[in-house]
Amino acid sequence: MVNPARSLPVDAWQAAHMVLEVALIDVLSGREEEFAAAYAKGHPTLVSTPGCRSVRMTRGIESPSRFVLLVEWDSVAAHEENFRGTDRFTTWRGLIGPYLAAPPHVEHFTDIPV
Amino acid sequence: MVNPARSLPVDAWQAAHMVLEVALIDVLSGREEEFAAAYAKGHPTLVSTPGCRSVRMTRGIESPSRFVLLVEWDSVAAHEENFRGTDRFTTWRGLIGPYLAAPPHVEHFTDIPV
Repeated sequence: MVNPARSLPVDAWQAAHMVLEVALIDVLSGREEEFAAAYAKGHPTLVSTPGCRSVRMTRGIESPSRFVLLVEWDSVAAHEENFRGTDRFTTWRGLIGPYLAAPPHVEHFTDIPV
Repeated sequence: MVNPARSLPVDAWQAAHMVLEVALIDVLSGREEEFAAAYAKGHPTLVSTPGCRSVRMTRGIESPSRFVLLVEWDSVAAHEENFRGTDRFTTWRGLIGPYLAAPPHVEHFTDIPV
């Protein structure tokens, strides 16, 4: 979809290729506050990962046990190699794992230009 | 979840109460480019809605027919009363509707503090 010219400045090229991780997270009913606290505790581990640009956790208004985690990465490889395949993920999952109703549904997305 | 003190500055209070619309959109296979073009055409109608703070459309890497629309609103009411209940939505849906594989799944979320 995004196909910038090779002559683009490096910043624009990287911005065009940034990926957004969208994780749909269903938390055990009644454990939402504990999950939010575990997230706050794990946030430094996630956000300090090389290639991680931003981290945002949100909670459902209509579905208060549903959370959506949005993480901007330099690339899918940065997410997988620098986070998922490392001790960082073990730490992160150890913190939030006890409150998950099911394994999170995780996919990557790229921005559509307007 | 978010319960700022009443003494917070107005900007911080509003920021804490901003809501994020997350729309999961499955597009008809083979019509993704047309959908993206329709989105670009409808973007001004959406982003100019009173109470709309930002609009971001993304396309799946693992699932190229899946799109996620992220819209920041002042409130759920701003989304429903200033957009969904108006001619703006008719225009928007008229543009993207022909390319939808199913009705989008739309929910609202609030940010979790760290």
